[in-house]
Amino acid sequence: MTEHTASPAPRPHDLPDVSDLVVGVLGGTGDQGRGLALRLAGVGQQVLIGSRSADRARTAAAEIGPGVTGADNAECARRADIVIVAVPWEGHRDLLTALREELAGKIVVDCVNPLGFDNKGAYALRPEEGSAAEQARDLLPDSRVTAAFHHLSAVLLQDLTIAEIDTDVLVLGDDREATDTVRALAARIPGMRGIYAGRLRNAHQVEALVANLISVNRRYKAHAGLRVTDV
Amino acid sequence: MTEHTASPAPRPHDLPDVSDLVVGVLGGTGDQGRGLALRLAGVGQQVLIGSRSADRARTAAAEIGPGVTGADNAECARRADIVIVAVPWEGHRDLLTALREELAGKIVVDCVNPLGFDNKGAYALRPEEGSAAEQARDLLPDSRVTAAFHHLSAVLLQDLTIAEIDTDVLVLGDDREATDTVRALAARIPGMRGIYAGRLRNAHQVEALVANLISVNRRYKAHAGLRVTDV
Repeated sequence: MTEHTASPAPRPHDLPDVSDLVVGVLGGTGDQGRGLALRLAGVGQQVLIGSRSADRARTAAAEIGPGVTGADNAECARRADIVIVAVPWEGHRDLLTALREELAGKIVVDCVNPLGFDNKGAYALRPEEGSAAEQARDLLPDSRVTAAFHHLSAVLLQDLTIAEIDTDVLVLGDDREATDTVRALAARIPGMRGIYAGRLRNAHQVEALVANLISVNRRYKAHAGLRVTDV
Repeated sequence: MTEHTASPAPRPHDLPDVSDLVVGVLGGTGDQGRGLALRLAGVGQQVLIGSRSADRARTAAAEIGPGVTGADNAECARRADIVIVAVPWEGHRDLLTALREELAGKIVVDCVNPLGFDNKGAYALRPEEGSAAEQARDLLPDSRVTAAFHHLSAVLLQDLTIAEIDTDVLVLGDDREATDTVRALAARIPGMRGIYAGRLRNAHQVEALVANLISVNRRYKAHAGLRVTDV
């Protein structure tokens, strides 16, 4: 006879071990993707960067350094356990539509910021689905979609003279296990914490806040990040 | 003959002296308003809280303590130099419509967060003007509208056992002198800095981010705030 015992609720700061997971980075040849690949490979994570062209991905992987390999986007999605989506907003919908099968069952981490720019600076765009992350959720019904890594400076990520990145990563999603996995991934990068910050329906403002950080950077000549206090 | 010399651009961390300004708090009998009044009076700022009922405002002012007086909203707006709008979103439009004349020429600081709540928690509302702050700007064409103080915990503000509030205040607006004044006001509260964070057209996401902080607070049993790093 089996006794069913309710497992205790996970404590908010407990994190799973993600060191064996393969991380894919779609759009990994861009600045944000390169920076994340560099930092994750630097702590021993196996990283696979994707690009439309497998050749370009392999060249970029070799430039980024040890622990990083390249493939076309479809193979990147197929081979990775966690897939970070770091493409420009303009290519977001088409890419995810094309990779629906490859991304089935995977944890998808959307870090895309839909922004427009004019002579007054950056401003937030409003995707019809509410946010880039909700667009991803709608396009990828068989994936575990989360949103994170929006506020990182690609400059700081790629500058290895900076040992620790002084910022928290806001992690959003409707699947507790998936968001905990992404929080653990963020926490592997020295200086960062992964902080749960709500459901996907509250992703728009997190994506859009990059417009404000761009204003901060311009005014203060900074590479601003965010820390959550009292956590 | 007069020589015109361009004055040097102000440095980003320079702040004006605001210690002589009278601060009004519309909705000053609510938790957020009381907390701000308490903290500002505590550093010697002259604070006037407003309410629909002058009696209720005077009672609340007496409870908050020395340096705080009460008046009805119209008198509060008329007598103050800087007016913080801390009313519930539901009353925002009507209040500002009624006070257009009293608020003419004043620096208005909107700290209203348009939120909805259901069984999944808080979510952002989208005002037709874009944000509460942009609604204020549209309703108050003769005022200098800014947005700030969105992310403060009313609990921490009102708890005087906490000497310093560990958070930055994001200050938005299209008028440099007005945003600098509000930044200086925020910086008077121990622990806080006032950080310029963009134009009013980027206010929505700053207001809406409170929904995310509510999720953080719930998960981590915290009173979360935000720090901007590298500034």
